[in-house]
Amino acid sequence: MSDYIKVPHLIEERSFEIITEELGDKTFPEDIAKIVKRVIHTTADFQYAEILVVSEDAINSAKKAIKSGGHIVTDTKMAMSGINKKKLSEYGGEVHCFISDEDVAKTAKEKGTTRAMAAMEKAIKDEKNKIFVIGNAPTALFKLKQFIEEGKVKPDLVVGVPVGFVGAAESKEEFEKLNVPYIVTRGRKGGSTVAAAIVNAILYML
Amino acid sequence: MSDYIKVPHLIEERSFEIITEELGDKTFPEDIAKIVKRVIHTTADFQYAEILVVSEDAINSAKKAIKSGGHIVTDTKMAMSGINKKKLSEYGGEVHCFISDEDVAKTAKEKGTTRAMAAMEKAIKDEKNKIFVIGNAPTALFKLKQFIEEGKVKPDLVVGVPVGFVGAAESKEEFEKLNVPYIVTRGRKGGSTVAAAIVNAILYML
Repeated sequence: MSDYIKVPHLIEERSFEIITEELGDKTFPEDIAKIVKRVIHTTADFQYAEILVVSEDAINSAKKAIKSGGHIVTDTKMAMSGINKKKLSEYGGEVHCFISDEDVAKTAKEKGTTRAMAAMEKAIKDEKNKIFVIGNAPTALFKLKQFIEEGKVKPDLVVGVPVGFVGAAESKEEFEKLNVPYIVTRGRKGGSTVAAAIVNAILYML
Repeated sequence: MSDYIKVPHLIEERSFEIITEELGDKTFPEDIAKIVKRVIHTTADFQYAEILVVSEDAINSAKKAIKSGGHIVTDTKMAMSGINKKKLSEYGGEVHCFISDEDVAKTAKEKGTTRAMAAMEKAIKDEKNKIFVIGNAPTALFKLKQFIEEGKVKPDLVVGVPVGFVGAAESKEEFEKLNVPYIVTRGRKGGSTVAAAIVNAILYML
């Protein structure tokens, strides 16, 4: 096995060719295709071509936010870790995740909520945070929805792709009813790698 | 939507109940079931019940390694980020990922290989590294296989679950032929979240 491809950009190029081939007749507008393919590249799961939903204004709104140096907030360190921070920093942006902050743990304990919810509460207080990326915690997405409805925050993009069996699908359904730029996955699937892949796909469009 | 479950351990408990229900007749030996269910919990993808392969000695070997303070090496920061480091540290263990190290970038450039391969080369030099976790880069798994065959390293567990379309499936097939404790996913699927879930499932058994 000394003949395997060892050049990273060739591996990625060939992967995207295979994905395009296998998607066959299933086509998307150019920018959405880039997101769908990068998520499939990350998961090897073609079901994402069926369950990814991108609101009409989502990609342009996100591009504009990134270009003006907007910050990104994630619900987990894992999603943060997967986002291309070098690329984001070219525009002055940063990625933050507040889940492990001591004040967040304290707020969660006092209010009897999840740390993910308390982390969202902290995130909306800084106006530099423009893009909210939730790949794990439905409770964070529910909380963010509440803040949006209360007029406390107006994100330029919400990536809402929590994975799981309890609340995940419901938290995303609720989001599709809001008047805010969003990218979600319908049903149970999603996760931190999916969340990061969506953000990176947008970064690579710039 | 003020009636959603907000208590993390209840969410997880209920999730595992649903997974067990939906697995139905598909049962596994107790320890393997814990791994399969945690991976499904992380991905919402029941196909993992079909494609996860655990070698006979893998779980016990990994438990022993962790209990004696063995270190874990991952191929990506994302997999490192998902592993429960607090739990691991109770036994004296640490998680390392060398992919972003300057000397690794230099070696990769000099040898014309991927950074993932150079990172494995660095990892095998420290005898404290007992468990090798590869969720992303087939090239890392190919390289690790070569080092094992050359007798340069004898891991107590290899978690080999790279995801992808170029080399991923092949890199894992090759691994099943080796005489080393392994956990792999057959085919294209896998990823950093899957890798971390497998390691955490073992940590939570202790």
